[in-house]
Amino acid sequence: MHHLSSDMQACIRSCLDCYQHCQHTALTTCLEKGGDHVAPDHFRLMIDCAEACRAAAALMINHSPYHAEFCRLCAQICRDCAASCDELDGMEACVRACRECAQACEAMAASP
Amino acid sequence: MHHLSSDMQACIRSCLDCYQHCQHTALTTCLEKGGDHVAPDHFRLMIDCAEACRAAAALMINHSPYHAEFCRLCAQICRDCAASCDELDGMEACVRACRECAQACEAMAASP
Amino acid sequence: MHHLSSDMQACIRSCLDCYQHCQHTALTTCLEKGGDHVAPDHFRLMIDCAEACRAAAALMINHSPYHAEFCRLCAQICRDCAASCDELDGMEACVRACRECAQACEAMAASP
Amino acid sequence: MHHLSSDMQACIRSCLDCYQHCQHTALTTCLEKGGDHVAPDHFRLMIDCAEACRAAAALMINHSPYHAEFCRLCAQICRDCAASCDELDGMEACVRACRECAQACEAMAASP
Repeated sequence: MHHLSSDMQACIRSCLDCYQHCQHTALTTCLEKGGDHVAPDHFRLMIDCAEACRAAAALMINHSPYHAEFCRLCAQICRDCAASCDELDGMEACVRACRECAQACEAMAASP
Repeated sequence: MHHLSSDMQACIRSCLDCYQHCQHTALTTCLEKGGDHVAPDHFRLMIDCAEACRAAAALMINHSPYHAEFCRLCAQICRDCAASCDELDGMEACVRACRECAQACEAMAASP
Repeated sequence: MHHLSSDMQACIRSCLDCYQHCQHTALTTCLEKGGDHVAPDHFRLMIDCAEACRAAAALMINHSPYHAEFCRLCAQICRDCAASCDELDGMEACVRACRECAQACEAMAASP
Repeated sequence: MHHLSSDMQACIRSCLDCYQHCQHTALTTCLEKGGDHVAPDHFRLMIDCAEACRAAAALMINHSPYHAEFCRLCAQICRDCAASCDELDGMEACVRACRECAQACEAMAASP
């Protein structure tokens, strides 16, 4: 697509992938397992992470000059979400998607 | 706002209000109470309802010729969500927001 | 991901891909070309299509029993958007993304 | 609603109001007037502002500990959008909604 470098396209893909993993895993695996998987702080973090990923992707797709700020914020939430998911069982794919997205967003936030 | 009848402005307001109630109540009251409040089918219905309300509001705000179809679909999900919330304690405000939104969306879907 | 058939994963991908193409192309190519590319009905259709794709993807990601209705509606808007884009130059990738998404959503809406 | 101070409820309302004004005005008034109203940088800023407002509202509605960061970012974009709209005719309501939202978000970002 016009105006989208391959780095930015990859970053959008990582954000949308992380959104899917966090939102879907929270609403299926976490709700079905219960217990620590639905602890309010953990569960909300997963939904926040999904929302932050959607927003960062949206600003990049919009060709926005503000995308770097959203990517920086998204990376921070993804790091926290990966750490929270890492303490629970059955969350490996979610941890991986969060870490990949954090890395792509950090690079995007730092690029000139 | 330009192009927005007072009926449509009221319907947008009902949709955004229902989005807020469903999303916020699910992520605070339901997670804190646990038990039936986090039963997967119930909890997902609340999040679906929030998403349907956001989408119906968005199409009306966009001055879209497709808004009626989204309102019709939103009303159906709001009715189901109201019924599900009505069986649990502490959900009165959410039930009320769902019913008001269903009514406003049904009227909007039926208007010529 | 848990609960997501490969057909549904492909449909989510088509929806998110069509969202990106419509939203990005409207806000870059169309605004830069001007003229018929920013005719109100055409431009709004592209933004409506992006929003419908986001909503259909969201309901599938949420593991929602209402996803088929959203897919059916999304397919209709994608068909209309493809036809509108097809009359303008420089919109080939957008037309293709709309048609692929329409086809995936029609199949999803029809599946039992 | 549970957990929402009256300040936060007012800030959510300002964000959703600004989202409506920016998105609706861009897709109706700006597209119909053409000329400077559809200059790419101006038009994209209005859509970015709408998206930032949606995201800031979403994080507050989610009872997220990250809401202050999103409010700070939203306020900055609203200030820029108000300045851009202020140079064009017929945008008074949009300018007002952007300034009110910027003020509410700045206060929210600064609150302990």
